[in-house]
Amino acid sequence: MKEIKLDLGNSSYSVFIGSLGELNFAGKVAVVTNPKVAGLHFKTLLSKIKAPEVYAISVPDGEEYKNLSNVESILEQCFISRLDRKSTIISFGGGVISDMAGFAASIYERGIGYVGVPTTLLAAVDASVGGKTGVNNKFGKNLIGSFYQPSAVYIDTSFLATLDSREIAAGMAEAIKMAVMFDEGFFNELAKKSLSYDEIIAKCVSLKADVVSQDEKEAGLRAVLNYGHTFAHVIECEGGYSTHLHGEAVAIGMVMANTLACELGLLSADEAQKIKNALEAYNLPTSYKIKDTNAFYEAFFHDKKSMDGNIKFILTNGKIGSHIIKGDISKDIVIKVLSKFC
Amino acid sequence: MKEIKLDLGNSSYSVFIGSLGELNFAGKVAVVTNPKVAGLHFKTLLSKIKAPEVYAISVPDGEEYKNLSNVESILEQCFISRLDRKSTIISFGGGVISDMAGFAASIYERGIGYVGVPTTLLAAVDASVGGKTGVNNKFGKNLIGSFYQPSAVYIDTSFLATLDSREIAAGMAEAIKMAVMFDEGFFNELAKKSLSYDEIIAKCVSLKADVVSQDEKEAGLRAVLNYGHTFAHVIECEGGYSTHLHGEAVAIGMVMANTLACELGLLSADEAQKIKNALEAYNLPTSYKIKDTNAFYEAFFHDKKSMDGNIKFILTNGKIGSHIIKGDISKDIVIKVLSKFC
Repeated sequence: MKEIKLDLGNSSYSVFIGSLGELNFAGKVAVVTNPKVAGLHFKTLLSKIKAPEVYAISVPDGEEYKNLSNVESILEQCFISRLDRKSTIISFGGGVISDMAGFAASIYERGIGYVGVPTTLLAAVDASVGGKTGVNNKFGKNLIGSFYQPSAVYIDTSFLATLDSREIAAGMAEAIKMAVMFDEGFFNELAKKSLSYDEIIAKCVSLKADVVSQDEKEAGLRAVLNYGHTFAHVIECEGGYSTHLHGEAVAIGMVMANTLACELGLLSADEAQKIKNALEAYNLPTSYKIKDTNAFYEAFFHDKKSMDGNIKFILTNGKIGSHIIKGDISKDIVIKVLSKFC
Repeated sequence: MKEIKLDLGNSSYSVFIGSLGELNFAGKVAVVTNPKVAGLHFKTLLSKIKAPEVYAISVPDGEEYKNLSNVESILEQCFISRLDRKSTIISFGGGVISDMAGFAASIYERGIGYVGVPTTLLAAVDASVGGKTGVNNKFGKNLIGSFYQPSAVYIDTSFLATLDSREIAAGMAEAIKMAVMFDEGFFNELAKKSLSYDEIIAKCVSLKADVVSQDEKEAGLRAVLNYGHTFAHVIECEGGYSTHLHGEAVAIGMVMANTLACELGLLSADEAQKIKNALEAYNLPTSYKIKDTNAFYEAFFHDKKSMDGNIKFILTNGKIGSHIIKGDISKDIVIKVLSKFC
């Protein structure tokens, strides 16, 4: 079993990658999951948990259910089960589940134990690590939430075996994101499709651990992890959070960001093509039809990172494996880039 | 202006006691208050705030409105006003307001700036300092919330001038609580009524700062601040959060805790009487009619500190100015003590 440490002072913890061993808890445990994951894997997880009492809390599957009302029903189940300050909430599912379960853990009796067991590639490479929790509301994505670190994350790739190809691809989008921003060598390996899931996950978690250790609360560097996301959030919103998986929207968002980077001389057309090819090699979508460039542009300001009226774009800084956070790009240039997707 | 520092690592901040000066903010400000406080003092506060934009958010006054749904409406107003990560929420009111405004600040975009301006004695001596935020639900008090420290607290006793005598007394209950647990000399001064509000507040904040600096997340010592509260929460709940002010219930709860301490030989009848006299000197209630001792006892387990089935009582440890956290007191003894209030 591989162990990757996140050094966050009092909130430090480890991510373990490999076959899931016995999980021991002194207090009660509530597993937050969805019906699909529970049907496929709950028995396996349950056989590993040693705790005085174990409860299962199921919430609907999908980004459109990631809201405060479902967090309230998780909390209600926890109160009915009389979870106390020595109890632990385990998230067992993808990013939607870990975002909600982590948020519930952070506000239940002002914070109880939290452990992540991701079952999707996207959650394994990205969402389960770093302590961002939260829910969407009518104003946008992840607008209500907290920074709350788990006490441990256990990634067992045998759970990934039941994912469909769209879900696997969505996870790869976030892996490619990490590579394009931080590690050209890793990108080349991904483009060649020469790595195992265990290797991809270990590399992504290491890169993310490094970023989060430097900037837990996203005062600066951590924002780089949002490469592609400024565009993706608008795409997801336009589709009512149901047409595109998050990772699919991020893939398109990276292509849009790269087009902007090319326009600004921060990426060559060749390198942009290489990234597009890599995304397509994993069957990710790279095109999108923008109906109204002005509306698309205005929607950027619903993103919490742009609410101060200054959109910050995360772009490559000259080549694959580098990054820059760019504010103050004129609306004309952005609209020109968006027009290429009409 | 007196400054008291809370040493909490990255979350350190100061409490300022004295005439409110100019408050400068680089970002937007939303003031969370209630109609009564707003009517009396909003103009004064507004004249002190220098910020690019200032919004007022009013929520109903009273413990029965301290719930998740009112936090949601605070958040909604913040989104409509497009508060961003550089913005600050100011709580302007008593403990109900600071608990809700602090909680809202802690989960708005995963946490934005938060400043406390308490307008009740209770909030000044207790609730506004230490970073506990939260709301009640049908399962009990403060069961949903977070630990979230303000960036500063400003206590101006001129706001206290409009409080009615019940509200002043409720604040004194928490001051007496601090004194009985931590400082016999302070207790004697309070009993003699020889201190000004500024002096009482400064002493309470100093004592609390010391406790919270040692144990921010209530792993041990901080629980001592709940002296009287285990009983008080049941009294408040039985009255539907409307018959007793929180401080009034705490006063009765201290008398109950003292009766238990006497029973266990942890307080003399003389000293218990001294505390009762002090409470009555401030016109606080010290009697309560328990209808059903078993029901009262069972209600202890709805308190989040007792959910593990072990009620921890906070008692004096032999004399005024000392404390002990006592678990494993037999039900028979507790019922015997409760029977004295039938």
